[in-house]
Amino acid sequence: MFVHNKQLQYTVRVATPNPGLANLMLEQFGGAQGELAAAMRYFTQGLAEDDAGRKDLLMDIATEELSHLEIIGSIIGMLNKGAKGQMAEGVEEEADLYRSLTDNGNDSHITSLLYGGGTPLINSGGVPWTSAYIDTIGEPTADLRSNIAAEARAKIVYERLINVTDDPGIKDALIFLMTREIAHQKSFEKALHSIQPNFPQGKLPGKAEYANIYYDLSQGEENIRGPWNEGAEWQFVDHPQPAVDGGDGRATVQLADRDFQVVQQMASRTLSNPLSNPVTGADLGSDIANQQHH
Amino acid sequence: MFVHNKQLQYTVRVATPNPGLANLMLEQFGGAQGELAAAMRYFTQGLAEDDAGRKDLLMDIATEELSHLEIIGSIIGMLNKGAKGQMAEGVEEEADLYRSLTDNGNDSHITSLLYGGGTPLINSGGVPWTSAYIDTIGEPTADLRSNIAAEARAKIVYERLINVTDDPGIKDALIFLMTREIAHQKSFEKALHSIQPNFPQGKLPGKAEYANIYYDLSQGEENIRGPWNEGAEWQFVDHPQPAVDGGDGRATVQLADRDFQVVQQMASRTLSNPLSNPVTGADLGSDIANQQHH
Amino acid sequence: MFVHNKQLQYTVRVATPNPGLANLMLEQFGGAQGELAAAMRYFTQGLAEDDAGRKDLLMDIATEELSHLEIIGSIIGMLNKGAKGQMAEGVEEEADLYRSLTDNGNDSHITSLLYGGGTPLINSGGVPWTSAYIDTIGEPTADLRSNIAAEARAKIVYERLINVTDDPGIKDALIFLMTREIAHQKSFEKALHSIQPNFPQGKLPGKAEYANIYYDLSQGEENIRGPWNEGAEWQFVDHPQPAVDGGDGRATVQLADRDFQVVQQMASRTLSNPLSNPVTGADLGSDIANQQHH
Amino acid sequence: MFVHNKQLQYTVRVATPNPGLANLMLEQFGGAQGELAAAMRYFTQGLAEDDAGRKDLLMDIATEELSHLEIIGSIIGMLNKGAKGQMAEGVEEEADLYRSLTDNGNDSHITSLLYGGGTPLINSGGVPWTSAYIDTIGEPTADLRSNIAAEARAKIVYERLINVTDDPGIKDALIFLMTREIAHQKSFEKALHSIQPNFPQGKLPGKAEYANIYYDLSQGEENIRGPWNEGAEWQFVDHPQPAVDGGDGRATVQLADRDFQVVQQMASRTLSNPLSNPVTGADLGSDIANQQHH
Amino acid sequence: MFVHNKQLQYTVRVATPNPGLANLMLEQFGGAQGELAAAMRYFTQGLAEDDAGRKDLLMDIATEELSHLEIIGSIIGMLNKGAKGQMAEGVEEEADLYRSLTDNGNDSHITSLLYGGGTPLINSGGVPWTSAYIDTIGEPTADLRSNIAAEARAKIVYERLINVTDDPGIKDALIFLMTREIAHQKSFEKALHSIQPNFPQGKLPGKAEYANIYYDLSQGEENIRGPWNEGAEWQFVDHPQPAVDGGDGRATVQLADRDFQVVQQMASRTLSNPLSNPVTGADLGSDIANQQHH
Amino acid sequence: MFVHNKQLQYTVRVATPNPGLANLMLEQFGGAQGELAAAMRYFTQGLAEDDAGRKDLLMDIATEELSHLEIIGSIIGMLNKGAKGQMAEGVEEEADLYRSLTDNGNDSHITSLLYGGGTPLINSGGVPWTSAYIDTIGEPTADLRSNIAAEARAKIVYERLINVTDDPGIKDALIFLMTREIAHQKSFEKALHSIQPNFPQGKLPGKAEYANIYYDLSQGEENIRGPWNEGAEWQFVDHPQPAVDGGDGRATVQLADRDFQVVQQMASRTLSNPLSNPVTGADLGSDIANQQHH
Repeated sequence: MFVHNKQLQYTVRVATPNPGLANLMLEQFGGAQGELAAAMRYFTQGLAEDDAGRKDLLMDIATEELSHLEIIGSIIGMLNKGAKGQMAEGVEEEADLYRSLTDNGNDSHITSLLYGGGTPLINSGGVPWTSAYIDTIGEPTADLRSNIAAEARAKIVYERLINVTDDPGIKDALIFLMTREIAHQKSFEKALHSIQPNFPQGKLPGKAEYANIYYDLSQGEENIRGPWNEGAEWQFVDHPQPAVDGGDGRATVQLADRDFQVVQQMASRTLSNPLSNPVTGADLGSDIANQQHH
Repeated sequence: MFVHNKQLQYTVRVATPNPGLANLMLEQFGGAQGELAAAMRYFTQGLAEDDAGRKDLLMDIATEELSHLEIIGSIIGMLNKGAKGQMAEGVEEEADLYRSLTDNGNDSHITSLLYGGGTPLINSGGVPWTSAYIDTIGEPTADLRSNIAAEARAKIVYERLINVTDDPGIKDALIFLMTREIAHQKSFEKALHSIQPNFPQGKLPGKAEYANIYYDLSQGEENIRGPWNEGAEWQFVDHPQPAVDGGDGRATVQLADRDFQVVQQMASRTLSNPLSNPVTGADLGSDIANQQHH
Repeated sequence: MFVHNKQLQYTVRVATPNPGLANLMLEQFGGAQGELAAAMRYFTQGLAEDDAGRKDLLMDIATEELSHLEIIGSIIGMLNKGAKGQMAEGVEEEADLYRSLTDNGNDSHITSLLYGGGTPLINSGGVPWTSAYIDTIGEPTADLRSNIAAEARAKIVYERLINVTDDPGIKDALIFLMTREIAHQKSFEKALHSIQPNFPQGKLPGKAEYANIYYDLSQGEENIRGPWNEGAEWQFVDHPQPAVDGGDGRATVQLADRDFQVVQQMASRTLSNPLSNPVTGADLGSDIANQQHH
Repeated sequence: MFVHNKQLQYTVRVATPNPGLANLMLEQFGGAQGELAAAMRYFTQGLAEDDAGRKDLLMDIATEELSHLEIIGSIIGMLNKGAKGQMAEGVEEEADLYRSLTDNGNDSHITSLLYGGGTPLINSGGVPWTSAYIDTIGEPTADLRSNIAAEARAKIVYERLINVTDDPGIKDALIFLMTREIAHQKSFEKALHSIQPNFPQGKLPGKAEYANIYYDLSQGEENIRGPWNEGAEWQFVDHPQPAVDGGDGRATVQLADRDFQVVQQMASRTLSNPLSNPVTGADLGSDIANQQHH
Repeated sequence: MFVHNKQLQYTVRVATPNPGLANLMLEQFGGAQGELAAAMRYFTQGLAEDDAGRKDLLMDIATEELSHLEIIGSIIGMLNKGAKGQMAEGVEEEADLYRSLTDNGNDSHITSLLYGGGTPLINSGGVPWTSAYIDTIGEPTADLRSNIAAEARAKIVYERLINVTDDPGIKDALIFLMTREIAHQKSFEKALHSIQPNFPQGKLPGKAEYANIYYDLSQGEENIRGPWNEGAEWQFVDHPQPAVDGGDGRATVQLADRDFQVVQQMASRTLSNPLSNPVTGADLGSDIANQQHH
Repeated sequence: MFVHNKQLQYTVRVATPNPGLANLMLEQFGGAQGELAAAMRYFTQGLAEDDAGRKDLLMDIATEELSHLEIIGSIIGMLNKGAKGQMAEGVEEEADLYRSLTDNGNDSHITSLLYGGGTPLINSGGVPWTSAYIDTIGEPTADLRSNIAAEARAKIVYERLINVTDDPGIKDALIFLMTREIAHQKSFEKALHSIQPNFPQGKLPGKAEYANIYYDLSQGEENIRGPWNEGAEWQFVDHPQPAVDGGDGRATVQLADRDFQVVQQMASRTLSNPLSNPVTGADLGSDIANQQHH
C-alpha cells in the first residue's frame, strides 16, 4: 500500500516562470527515460519478483521514483505559473502572447497548455507516454541489466536538462535527481552481481559453434578492431557467407498431407460463386484494364 | 550501402505449416525485443557514433540483425503457407476454417492474416512495431549498457519460443539466433569495458551527499538486505523523511515582476467580452445549475 | 513524497493459477479504465491544482489508486504463477502447453507471458498503456466531471470482471475495488458541486442565440424526443439548414497583400531549376504516361 | 446513411493566412478533445444503443460534430492558404521561408505542411489522432457522464483557442462551436437525469462497509476538508492501514495439484538439452563472469 | 454540413449473434483498411482540395464511406447482441461463458466487450485506430494514387471477411460494400488520368542520370528479370557500387567557424562545475569500476 | 543475408551544421513516407512473395531503401554535429544556446537532441515511427498499387525538403534520393501491368448492379462532374436514397433460441448477489441522486 506525504522529497525553488523550459522538463516527466517510466519499470518487476530481497529493492526504488515524478512535475507546474492563466484569459495582444509563451525553449508547450493546462504525461515533443518504454521481461538478470541501462540513460537526460537552464533552484533539484539515478544504478549493479552465474541469462545455454564468432558484415577499407572482436576468444570471420549451417540457405516447408490436398483442391475446383451477377475485370474495369495493358 | 544475398544466413526448415505458431514467432519479428528493434537500435547508434571502431562494431551487428530479421520472417512465412490461401479462398466450412487456423497457439494471427496476409511488423499480440522500443540516447557508455540489456532480453524471448515448439528445424534456427544474441551481448560488454572510466556515464559527476544513500521507502515487517544497500559504502536511511535538502519540501516560484503585473491586471480589469449576447450559467444552464446546487 | 508499505491495502487470495483469467484482469492494470490511468489522472491534476482542499483530495485518491494498482497487479501475478515457469521451461508437450495456457480466457496472455513474463502494463488485448487515456484539461470543474465519468466507467469494468470469474477470493477483492470507485465518484460529485457556478465551465459564456437550439440532424420516420430536446428551454430545429449565421456557408480567406504577390510571382517566374539534366514525365515516364493518358 | 451539403453549417471567414495559427487550431481537428473524437464518441455509442430516443440523440449530435469537424478543418485550410504553396515551391530564401512559416504560433505546423500539406488528423503538437481518446464503455449512464465531461473539456479548449487569435471571423466561428458544446453538454445532462436510478451505474451495488469511507492517504501538516470527505455520510480514516479486510495483506495462491507436480518435476528432472554442444556461462562468458564476480 | 438518415444505405440482416465473428468484422470498422480510414482519407483531402470537381468527388465518396462505417458497425452490433449482456450479467458458469463468447473466431472480442461493450474503433486484434493509417500528402496525383491503392486493399479485406462467414445476410452486405470499393477505385483511376501530365507527380523533375537505372542489390544464383528492370529504357547495374556520384562515399561536414571555436573551447576549458561536492566514477563507483576494468 | 559497405551509396556533403534543418530531414528518416517505411514495406512483401521475379524486385528495392535510410541518417548526423555537444556541455549562456539550436527550422529537434542525441527514428514533429505506416495486405496487385502510391508520396516529401534548404550538397543528395523514388515508382508500375488481369484485384468479382453506380452524396448548388462519374459507363444517382437493396434499411438480428432463453432468464430471475451488504443508489448515493432527480 502507498502513503503520500504532502512535502516533497526535495524542495523545489523556481526563480521565475518559464513555460518554454517547463516543456523541456517534460522529458523527465512523461518521456521515455522519465520518472514514470522508471517507477513503473521497477513496480511491475517488483510485483512479479519471487525473491524477497530483490522485491524489496525494486519496491524501494519504485517508490522513490514516484517521489521524483512528483518533484519534476512540481517544477513543471511552477514554470507554467501564469502562462496557463494567460492562455485562458487572452490578456495580451496575440503577438505578445506568443512571444511570452515561446520565449526560451521549444514551443511544444503551447500544445501542452492548450490541451493539458500544465503537467500532462507527454515528452518534451508532445508525444504521449506509452508503456512501450518499459522493457521488463520477467527474468531477474535480464531485467537488472535493463534497469542499469535505464538509470544510465536517465542520468544523461538529467545532465542535458541541467545544461539548458541557468535557474539555480532548478539546477539544484535536477542535480539531486541525477545523483539518485547514479545511486540506483549502483544498487542494480550490485544486485546483478549477487546472482551467480548471471551469464548467459535464462536457462538454455548457447550453441558452442556460434557463440564466439564475430561476423564482419560491414565491409570496406578501414577495419578497426577492438576487444569486442579480437583476441583468443573470438573467431573473426572476414567475409561472412550465408547458410552458415551448411544448408542451402533457403526457407522451405515440408507440406503436411492435409495441405497438399488443399492445394490440389484449389487447382481443380471452381469457386462456388456467392454473387448473383458476377462482374469481372474484363467487363467492369475494361477502360482501366485497356489503359494499363498496352 | 547495403547489399543483399538471396540466401539466408541460416537455412530455415519448417516441418509443417502452423499459423498459430507463426503468430508467436512474430514476437521476434515485430515485437519489442525483436530483430527489427535490434537492427535499428545499432544502426541509429552507428550513424551518430564518432569512434571508428565502435561505429564499425555497431554496423557489423546491425547488419547481422537485419539478416536475422530475414530468418525469423522466413520462418513465419513458411508457417503461414496454406493458411493465407485458406483465408483468401474460404475453401472450408466456417467452423473448420477457424479450427484449422487457431490450432496450436494464440489466435491473434487471424488478424495478421486478415490485414497483413503473412509477415506484418507486429508483435505476437498484434501490436504494431514502434520506435518507442528503441532507447538510444546518444552517449556511448549508456547506449552500450542499453545494448547489453537488449541482447539479454532477446535471448530470453528466444528461449521461450524454443520451448513452445516441437519442430526440430525451427528449434535449430532459433537456437542459432539465440546464440548470436549471446555473442553480441559479449561484444557489447567488451566495448563498454574498453571505455574507461565508464561510470557514471556522461560528464557531470553526482553530488556526494546523495550518492551513497539508500532510502528504505518500502516499509513493513520483513527487511531483507543485500549488497545493494548494505556494507560500508552505503548509508542506509531507515525511515526516509521528505525535504532531504533541509528546505520546506514545498514547490514555490518567485514571480517575476512582469507576472505580478499580469496577475494584478487580471484582478482589476473587466474582460472585453467578445460575445454579442453573453449567456452565463445563471440563465443558460439554470436548470442544471439548480439541480446541482442544492 | 510517497512511502510504501509491504502489506497490500486488501488481502489477495487466489484459489488456483489461471493465466487466461490473469489476462482479462490486465484490463484494470494497464487498460484505459485501469488503476494506472486513475492514479495518473488524479496525480497530474493534483500537481497543477492551486486550491489546497482539492489538491489534497486529488492526492488522497491518487495514492489510493496506486494501492489498487498494486492489488490488481498482485492478483495477476498470482494467476500467472506456474504459467510463467512452464513457458520458460517447456516442460510439457507443445499441445499440452498450449492447452494449459489458454484454458479459460482469451489468449492474449500468451503474448504477455512471452514478452513480459507476468504483469506488463497492457490491456486485456495486449495494447500498451498510453497517457492518451488521460483527459485532464487543467480546469477544475471540467476535470472533476472527467473524474466522475472515469470512476463510472471503472466501476462497470470491475462489474464485468466480477462476472467472468468464479474464484471467491478474487471476486471479493474486485468487489472491494469496485466499491471504492463508487466512493471516489461520490467524492468527485461533491467537489464539483462545491464549486459554484460550475456551468458552463471556464470563463467565456456561450452565445445566447445558439445555446438552446437542438438540431435534429438524424432524420427519418421515428423521432422520439425527451428532456434533452423538448420543453420550453429548447428550440427544436426540425430540418436544420447550413449557414446558420446567415452567411454563404463557404470558407473564404481574404488574402493579404504579401500573399497576392507570391501568387503573382508564381505565375510569372520560371523556377530556377536545381537540376543539371531535368527529366520530365514526357521523356522519363513516357511508357507509363502513354498508358495512362489515352 | 449520411448525406453531405456543400455549404458549411457556419460560414468561415479568415482575414489572412497564418500557418502558425492553423497549427493551434489542429487541436480541435485531430486532438483529444477535437471534433473527430466527439463525432466518433457519439456515433459508436449510437450504434450500440438500444433505446430509440437516446440512439436518436446520439446520432443527431454525432452528425453535428461531423459538421463541426468540417468547419474547423475549413478554418485550418484557409489559414494554410499560400503556405502550402510556398513550401512546395521554395520561392523564397531559406531564412525568409522559415520566418514566414513560423510567424505567430508554434511551429509543429511545418511538420504538418511537410507531410500532410494542410489538414492532417493530428493535434497541435503533431500527434496522430487515436481512438484511445474515446472512452465509450457501453453502459448508458456511464457513457452519458463521459459525454458530459467530454463536452466540458472541448468547451475549455475552444475558449483557449478564442483567446489566442485576434481574427474576428475565426473568433466568431469558434464562439459558435464553443456554444454548441455547451448545448450538447446540457442535452447529455438531461438524458442522464432521465434515467433513474443512475447511481451507482451498472447492476452490482457496492459493498456497504467500504462505500462511505474516505482514506486520508496524503498526509502532512495541512488537512483541508470539504463536502467530499466530511459530514455524516463519510467515515474519515485518518491514518489508513493496509489489509482493511482484516487479512494479512499478502498475495497468495493456493497452488492446484497439477502445479505442485510441475514444480516438483522441475526440481528433480534434468532438462533434456536440445543443444549439441552446450555452452554455459562458465566457459563462454568466463571473461565477463570473472569481471563481474569479484 | 452533414445530415443523417436513420435508415442504413444497405439493409443489415444477421442470422444469429456471433461475437467471435463480430470481432473479425472490426477489421473494417476500426482497422487500417476500414471505413473510418477511408472516410477520413477522402474528407481531409476534400477539405484541402482547390479543384471544385475533385473536391466534390472526394466529399461524395467520403460521405458514402461514413455510411459504410455505419453499415459495418451495425453488423458488429447485431453480432454482439446478447454477448454484451452475458458479460454484464455473468448468467452462466465461468467455463460456459467463455465457450459461448469465444465460439467461432478469435477472442480479442472479449477485450472489446470488456472495455467497449460493442463497437469500439479498434481492429480485429484490438489495436486502437490511429490517423497514422491515413497517408494524405496534399498533392492531388499522389493522393489519388494513394486512394486507388487504399480501395484495392479494402476490397481484399472484404473478400477475406466474406470467406470467413456462412451467414447469407452478412455475406450479402459485405459483397455490396466490396463492390462499392471497386467502383470507388475506378472513379479515382479516372480522376488521376484526367490530370495530365501526372508523372512524376509534383513540380521537380528527377535527375536524368539516375532515373532509368535499376540497381540489382539482391544478389545470388537466380536473377529473374521482368519489365521492371529489362528493356531499352532500363540501365541494369549488375553489381552496384557505393558512391555512385563519384565522390568518396563518406558523410562530411565543413564546420563553420563558430563551431570550430566551440570545439577548441571544449578542449581547453575546465567545466565550471555546478556541483558543491563533485563525485566521480573514481570514488563513487569504485567498486563497480574495479569490477569492470580488469 | 545482408552485407554492409562502409561507403554510402551517395556521398553526403554538408556545408555547415544546422540542427533545425536536421529536424526537418527526420521526416524522411523516421516519418510516414521515410526510408525505413519504404525499406520495411518492400522487405515484408518480399518475404511473403511466392513469385521469384517479384520477390527479387522487392528485395532489390528494399535493399536500396536501406541504403537511402543510411544516406538521410548521415545527413541528419552531420547537421547535428556540434549541437549535440553543446547540449551536453552547456557551454553557452542559456539564451544563446536556445538561439543557436532553434535557428532555421522547427524546434522539435531540441527534443530529439534531448532524448536521442542525434538520429532517432521519429518524424519531423517528434512522433515515433510505427509500422502502422506500412499497408502491405499480402495480395500482389493491391500491394504494387500501394507501392506506387508510396513512392509518389515520398517523391513529394523530398521535393518539399529540397525547397527548404539552400545547402548545395544536401540539395544534391536529396535530388538523387528523389529521383530514385521516381525510378522505383516506374518499376512498380511495370510490375503491376505485368500481372493480367489486375482489376479488380483478388478473387471475388463485384456485384454488377452496384459496380457502375456513382452516388452524388455531397449536395448543393455546384455539381462539377468529370470522367469519374459521367459517361456511358456510369449510372449517376442524383439524390441517393437509403436501403438501396430494397430492404427496410434497418439492422436486425434473428435471435437464436439460446439467446431468447437468456433474455427470458434475465427478465425473471433475481441476481444471486455476491455481496454481503448490498448498497444501492437509493441509500448510498442518496445525496447525489436527490440532486440529480428533481
